[in-house]
Amino acid sequence: MKTASIIVIGNEILSGRTQDTNSNYLAKRLSDIGVSLKEIRVISDEKSKIIEVVRSESKKADFVFTSGGIGPTHDDITADSISRAFNLKIGIRDDAVIQLAKNYPNGRKDLNPARLRMARVPEGAELIENKISGAPGFKVKNVYVMAGVPSIFKSMVESILKNIKTSDSFVSSSLRILKPESQISEQLRKISLKYKDIAIGSYPFKQDENIGVEVVVRHTDNKYVQKVLKEVTKILNEQ
Amino acid sequence: MKTASIIVIGNEILSGRTQDTNSNYLAKRLSDIGVSLKEIRVISDEKSKIIEVVRSESKKADFVFTSGGIGPTHDDITADSISRAFNLKIGIRDDAVIQLAKNYPNGRKDLNPARLRMARVPEGAELIENKISGAPGFKVKNVYVMAGVPSIFKSMVESILKNIKTSDSFVSSSLRILKPESQISEQLRKISLKYKDIAIGSYPFKQDENIGVEVVVRHTDNKYVQKVLKEVTKILNEQ
Repeated sequence: MKTASIIVIGNEILSGRTQDTNSNYLAKRLSDIGVSLKEIRVISDEKSKIIEVVRSESKKADFVFTSGGIGPTHDDITADSISRAFNLKIGIRDDAVIQLAKNYPNGRKDLNPARLRMARVPEGAELIENKISGAPGFKVKNVYVMAGVPSIFKSMVESILKNIKTSDSFVSSSLRILKPESQISEQLRKISLKYKDIAIGSYPFKQDENIGVEVVVRHTDNKYVQKVLKEVTKILNEQ
Repeated sequence: MKTASIIVIGNEILSGRTQDTNSNYLAKRLSDIGVSLKEIRVISDEKSKIIEVVRSESKKADFVFTSGGIGPTHDDITADSISRAFNLKIGIRDDAVIQLAKNYPNGRKDLNPARLRMARVPEGAELIENKISGAPGFKVKNVYVMAGVPSIFKSMVESILKNIKTSDSFVSSSLRILKPESQISEQLRKISLKYKDIAIGSYPFKQDENIGVEVVVRHTDNKYVQKVLKEVTKILNEQ
């Protein structure tokens, strides 16, 4: 399976002021298309930190997605940091200015220096359309750079996912069983040792008065998923 | 300022099934007591990954907090991974069994092997009380290992924060201004270049029909915060 990392850039998340929801949205969408998300990292608006983490995740994962830091203010330093991470030049690009200007009543005339900062894009980067407020995201190598504002982030995610090719689609099937986790966990452990190459997760839940566990089996081979799920169901119902 | 890292352990977050809220809760509480949160990392239930990330964050930050993976099932491998990260022995500890047993109607008699897994604690670790369901967390060196279930996580956070000594308390003051971010961002950039040693953040907001920006100034020295905030207020109101 193809792998991914998400890098959330923003002091407002680290200070607790803002609850990050972008990574959960993207995590679900990656599950939908069968990409395995390996890590989410929330980091501060510091150039050296962004450079270090982008370089490192870009080497480890097939796809890297960033959120945040591409607005007009002084602490929006993501574009500059990405260009430094890959030793690319950066400047105001005409294609980005055109996309940006569409958002203002008087077009280019409304673009003051702060707004023009949002058209700074590393050389060679592909633009990512922003249907909400104009200012584009961009893609450099395997890194997709997107806005932090949730509505814009989601819209950008949907536009890029269409073009992401995943070699495998994968299947997940689950069983909900109304027994406490501690009652079935020993058997689950044994099954997971028997089938080491398949992901078996267990998620406790509470429903009205009842507690139970949802057991989820995931793999690229649906027949295999069904075989293991059948065995899980049989064994856990006997517990 | 003292620094911290949060490590959230759990495939259910990476698959998008669960929205992590623990890190936001702890992030706010760390802000309250003046600890600077440097990074949040969400990683999978894989022993080698947990070991690598715990070792690395433990060296970088003053405090490391983990969430998840200390329940009774086969995929709860946090305790074992932490013991491996620091080359400590691990086993079922009597003090942990006592805390755990309190939670069951028949005490120790109810502790099957799966439940007893939750009393496995690395040697030398201090226990962290779990007022909700008995199974304790623990502290090894500068790493606080806590449950993933939000109510238990919060209760554990509150019990450990009392004992965390921070050398400085810090102050944050903010100004809410009803102007679009792009209108004030150039001036903000200049102020932040002038006062490089103080954190100035800007957070756009929407309130009914209005859009605006909250500008937040943070430092350990309150007088300094007030001086900079006064200057910010004057300059931005002129914009």
